[in-house]
Amino acid sequence: MYFPQFIPYSFIEKEASHVEGFSPELALVTIGGGKELEEKLVVRPTSETIVNHMFTQWIHSYRDLPLKINQWVNVTRWEMRTKPFVRTLEFLWQEGHTGHATEEEAEEEALQMIEVYRKFAVEEAAIPVIVGRKSKLETFAGAVRTYTIEAMMGDRKALQAGTSHNLGQNFSRAFNTQFLDSQGEQQYIWQTSWAISTRMVGGIIMTHGDDMGLMLPPRLAPIQVVIIPIWKTDAEKETVLAAATSVHDQLKKEGVRTKVDASEQKTPGWKFNFWEMKGVPLRIEIGPRDVANKTVVVSRRDIPGKSGKMFGISMDPSQLHSFVIAKLQEVQDNLFNIAVSFRDSNIEDVSSFEDLKAAIAAGKWARGPWAGSDADEARIKEETGATIRCFPFEQPSHSGRCFMTQNAAKEVAIFAKSY
Amino acid sequence: MYFPQFIPYSFIEKEASHVEGFSPELALVTIGGGKELEEKLVVRPTSETIVNHMFTQWIHSYRDLPLKINQWVNVTRWEMRTKPFVRTLEFLWQEGHTGHATEEEAEEEALQMIEVYRKFAVEEAAIPVIVGRKSKLETFAGAVRTYTIEAMMGDRKALQAGTSHNLGQNFSRAFNTQFLDSQGEQQYIWQTSWAISTRMVGGIIMTHGDDMGLMLPPRLAPIQVVIIPIWKTDAEKETVLAAATSVHDQLKKEGVRTKVDASEQKTPGWKFNFWEMKGVPLRIEIGPRDVANKTVVVSRRDIPGKSGKMFGISMDPSQLHSFVIAKLQEVQDNLFNIAVSFRDSNIEDVSSFEDLKAAIAAGKWARGPWAGSDADEARIKEETGATIRCFPFEQPSHSGRCFMTQNAAKEVAIFAKSY
Repeated sequence: MYFPQFIPYSFIEKEASHVEGFSPELALVTIGGGKELEEKLVVRPTSETIVNHMFTQWIHSYRDLPLKINQWVNVTRWEMRTKPFVRTLEFLWQEGHTGHATEEEAEEEALQMIEVYRKFAVEEAAIPVIVGRKSKLETFAGAVRTYTIEAMMGDRKALQAGTSHNLGQNFSRAFNTQFLDSQGEQQYIWQTSWAISTRMVGGIIMTHGDDMGLMLPPRLAPIQVVIIPIWKTDAEKETVLAAATSVHDQLKKEGVRTKVDASEQKTPGWKFNFWEMKGVPLRIEIGPRDVANKTVVVSRRDIPGKSGKMFGISMDPSQLHSFVIAKLQEVQDNLFNIAVSFRDSNIEDVSSFEDLKAAIAAGKWARGPWAGSDADEARIKEETGATIRCFPFEQPSHSGRCFMTQNAAKEVAIFAKSY
Repeated sequence: MYFPQFIPYSFIEKEASHVEGFSPELALVTIGGGKELEEKLVVRPTSETIVNHMFTQWIHSYRDLPLKINQWVNVTRWEMRTKPFVRTLEFLWQEGHTGHATEEEAEEEALQMIEVYRKFAVEEAAIPVIVGRKSKLETFAGAVRTYTIEAMMGDRKALQAGTSHNLGQNFSRAFNTQFLDSQGEQQYIWQTSWAISTRMVGGIIMTHGDDMGLMLPPRLAPIQVVIIPIWKTDAEKETVLAAATSVHDQLKKEGVRTKVDASEQKTPGWKFNFWEMKGVPLRIEIGPRDVANKTVVVSRRDIPGKSGKMFGISMDPSQLHSFVIAKLQEVQDNLFNIAVSFRDSNIEDVSSFEDLKAAIAAGKWARGPWAGSDADEARIKEETGATIRCFPFEQPSHSGRCFMTQNAAKEVAIFAKSY
């Protein structure tokens, strides 16, 4: 679907915590077609309100439920300090909105979508994420519960990489979105919303990149293999280009996203650096000697500070193809494993506020039993800059006493500085 | 690419005719993050200005040219009287922007893109369009020349369905977008821009629809064939559903976009009407007798007021598949031919202002030799509501004297009321 991006200000005001959360971030259109508008228009920061305005007109009976919609759109949230991809005044995302007949169904939907995001982050982007529930302070403005996937970037800051909200009946009560249930009773619908954005692009860059540039996980890399032909004489050029084209066509036929960089303005060395910076997972070099030997040189771009060069790989189509497929999978797995090790070696288990302060000061994440109040959480943010990233779904069997309050804690929380 | 949608007002002001043309249509953000902004932000009505702002930083030498970019985005133009798809305050489009070293190259690009749009309209959307050049009054604000494809809707109004602009050096001079040519001289770049929008969806609806609803050209129809199984008893249900699924799977395997509507809440008659309204090009009915005879009933949705039912088509996979493919092509061609006949029977050749007034009053388009001034053109609009849609590329060998001024006319123009 596609909803209008201008939302009447009165829509935003209907759900009390929603307007409270979003009003500092709004861009407002006050002039249209040369005239001052009677009602200000909000440039969509998210679409729950305008979606509910329509849901109220579309939903009448339990037969109309569940209703699930999605849109791919731009959204605007006023930011004073922007950072490319991860905190921008305007960004692109998909936002899903659903309406259900029961609380259970809505909860199931919210959980299913955070699992979709987890799977995408792990399997496609090779980003290990911690899935969990947000604290009350960090819950989406208007939601009952927010689920999140949290990733550790190369600078050890946390990135909230996707969220899924159980909205309960907050918006349906505000917008009077009701349905006739199978017993003939009017009921408010139960809702969810969920989104993942261009921020994920930043997550990929900052999880896998190094000082040489990007490292792209093969599953997502637009170019998986770049082929650099190397020649000096015109005679060499002919045979080397023919071999490069042949290797390219073979790999392409097998579904490998491949590019030959045969431009003559740049040196091979320049091209190596350029495609390394672009994060292409595998590079194939073919020179005159390779043509003679029917081999190629393959390099992988997933080992920080190492060249990853493999010499004398056979040019034979079936052998080279299997080799490339296997190496792409290895790079994918290796990027994920490096990110897991890095993350796990940078999470400290803490059992006191002092521990937490030390962990955060050292640039790490802190994990510990938590039963504090909103005020306790705010104090930690005030003193350390860290916030509760989530209560992870994966909990230790026994969590003990809250490191802050010494109250019995039902679960551990993860604290970190974030983008 | 993706450019920010908020454009500083000072950018819009730089090209004089651009700001003159667009200022009555702008939505302006004046408040951001709770504060009055120092500079108003324009919500993108089109992106020439912000693109040139970046082109000026990206383009330095003739080696950087041509530079061709495209983005798929929402745009906003303030409209007092909206009409779904064809005139909306916000719409979705692709907008291409190019920079070239020479005037000739820019002209070639502008012509190439209007040809791309013509081909898409004719071959995919089955909309016969007239390709031509806009009059000075109707040229894009900031362009040297605008090319257009114009289509006649079912109510005989003209729809401008896509445009391509030769911008000359208007924006490069306003934004100082220069390059060092191969002789070492600083030159302003030559530019084009071109766009097609969600308006095309309206064009498809209003070219092919009838009082029963949509008629979708098979090449674009999301569902090309809907299969309606018909049964009374449980035993019939089993064999009929099995046959429907088998036909569905066969067609799908051959790349036909097919759906079985096996829902039990609705009657077959209800489903016939529903899918007719949705414009699905072919319907296949399968009942118990069809299963026994190993046949199906096929209906086509392209003959206004006629049922288009074909009985006893063999269910044999290869026969049915060839039949369906052939019929889809027939429907595609027939929709196009009906639209061509309708259009051609509604264009009048005129040789006087009186002729034109009569043609326009009768709801038709008027075509005649034109050598009038901007004031003459404005007078026609004033008196009849019609504007010059274009000077068509296809011109008669001899055009004669201007029907308005009696001056020698180099070409004919087409006049019509438009959306």
